[in-house]
Amino acid sequence: MSDLIREIGERGLIERLRSRVGEPGEGVVVGIGDDAAVIDEGGADYLLLTDDAFIDQIHFDLSTWTPTQVGIKAMAATLSDIAAMGGRAKACLVSLLLPPSFEVGHLDGLYDGLMTTAGRFGVTIVGGNIVRAPRLGLCLTATGSVDKTRLCPRSGATVGEILAVTGDLGRSEAGRLVVARSLAVDEATAHSARQKHFEPVPRLEEAALLVGAVKVGAMIDISDGLASEVHHIARESKVGARLDVGALPILEGTRRVARAAGVDPVSLALGGGEDFELLLTLPPEMLGTAGRALEPSGTTLTAIGEVTSQDEGVRLIGEDGVARPLDVAGWDHLRSDS
Amino acid sequence: MSDLIREIGERGLIERLRSRVGEPGEGVVVGIGDDAAVIDEGGADYLLLTDDAFIDQIHFDLSTWTPTQVGIKAMAATLSDIAAMGGRAKACLVSLLLPPSFEVGHLDGLYDGLMTTAGRFGVTIVGGNIVRAPRLGLCLTATGSVDKTRLCPRSGATVGEILAVTGDLGRSEAGRLVVARSLAVDEATAHSARQKHFEPVPRLEEAALLVGAVKVGAMIDISDGLASEVHHIARESKVGARLDVGALPILEGTRRVARAAGVDPVSLALGGGEDFELLLTLPPEMLGTAGRALEPSGTTLTAIGEVTSQDEGVRLIGEDGVARPLDVAGWDHLRSDS
Repeated sequence: MSDLIREIGERGLIERLRSRVGEPGEGVVVGIGDDAAVIDEGGADYLLLTDDAFIDQIHFDLSTWTPTQVGIKAMAATLSDIAAMGGRAKACLVSLLLPPSFEVGHLDGLYDGLMTTAGRFGVTIVGGNIVRAPRLGLCLTATGSVDKTRLCPRSGATVGEILAVTGDLGRSEAGRLVVARSLAVDEATAHSARQKHFEPVPRLEEAALLVGAVKVGAMIDISDGLASEVHHIARESKVGARLDVGALPILEGTRRVARAAGVDPVSLALGGGEDFELLLTLPPEMLGTAGRALEPSGTTLTAIGEVTSQDEGVRLIGEDGVARPLDVAGWDHLRSDS
Repeated sequence: MSDLIREIGERGLIERLRSRVGEPGEGVVVGIGDDAAVIDEGGADYLLLTDDAFIDQIHFDLSTWTPTQVGIKAMAATLSDIAAMGGRAKACLVSLLLPPSFEVGHLDGLYDGLMTTAGRFGVTIVGGNIVRAPRLGLCLTATGSVDKTRLCPRSGATVGEILAVTGDLGRSEAGRLVVARSLAVDEATAHSARQKHFEPVPRLEEAALLVGAVKVGAMIDISDGLASEVHHIARESKVGARLDVGALPILEGTRRVARAAGVDPVSLALGGGEDFELLLTLPPEMLGTAGRALEPSGTTLTAIGEVTSQDEGVRLIGEDGVARPLDVAGWDHLRSDS
């Protein structure tokens, strides 16, 4: 019997395709496996390239999302990959997969959303195309650039650095739960969580401030959940990591939503995903400088653990002070039924 | 009642989105509406960016296509847009839309096909992503570069130039007909037509030879059919065009397929689409030089008409010597039921 996609999962697939594609060609600094590809064209900056796809009823649902929200979030998720490399975003392409029965008016909302996020960061939509498809989908490509000395690939972590994260964790998943389960929480909390889930803002400003102020080792954006992203950095950098559960920045509102939903707030932070915060490594003595550098953005930076040697693996120090292996626990969207 | 996508068609949609996106930002030389976007990053070359999407049962059909053919053609169609700007292709991204029941073995074939076309032109697959979807789909992005003095946008045609086309026309649609209608034609003809339809080769080598030898005015690749592409050049260049039906390069084999199918071979050439040949304008005195420059590629160049003033519109001189307005007659894939 031939293997089916659902049986080998996303990671297995990516490894399979990565080996099939072979060695990157001339000028390719980073190929498959990072947030964005990195290409050296000879100037002072690297070219960054990334794409992402979003399908109705899988990544969003037109029955609960406005077309504008779909556009805002799809563009945010795509530009977030440029931020994760320490880059500035520049231009993007939009491929639309449209069912023939789709209402043109909804398309205006979709584009308003795309332009809301893109315009905020001076990103121009320079092209794309439109094809028929059974369900609404968007394939977005973003380009950007990064000063060659400031690139922060997933492979850049070194033992002794600390792990830090921008903003707070688990709020996007809290927003999803508030809507999906019609949870009874105060409106301020519900609003903040919904906004994080439906209208996230990519951390481009924060990325620029960080790489301008300190030597960032590795950086990645949190799309599949903190645990999954820490594992990515550990694997690509050939290091281990020790996270402190007590240090995770989880807002009180997120904890209230978790209680209302009957779930552990830590599980939202570790596995919820789609927070689009930046997880990075940096020398311990630079944490204060980095935090101050972020002040103009209004975004906090929190130390949540440290980079250890590879043989320690990825571990989480629980509230009892005991370090235990941390499951990937990322949302594997090819296997998941949710 | 709100308009539906099927009612306004692809051209109406693109115009609507183009106006919504607003003026291109700094450094954007060509935005929405050409084969590829053109970005000035300050060096001697422009950066080219294009994307394309392919959906099972719309752009191909897994019941009659091998996964390898799907990969070959999808990559060819994407890289063809780089050729159409006079550019060299460099790197690409592949987003896969996969149904969970898709067989992993088919994925290997798909990638073999993508790599067959990409590898032929030294193009590296540098990234991408995988998402679940109800049907197999591919979203491909290609980057390339073109010397700033050699860019050939759709808007580059001037009155008095001639229109020329590489290779031959209508053979891809002939290949589709051979398979779809199980036409009884000799095997050599059937093979050649099938190969053009299922395994086209983008004209990157020809584009490089042409822009290196002569001053090309406008250039475009033939994806929707010759008539549609001539109209694109006329509209973007604010010119007219006069094509000579007797000059169209239609192979004898393509004519045999047309006879077997009971269709006019000229309609295959004008409206068949997916030939992925290059349509270009150039000064009449450069035709000989351009043809000789193409010799290393083994591809012919045929003069098929001339660029006229805008008020003449786009006309076709029939076999009776009379010039009549030429319908767009391109395959509008949002409206079409085929």
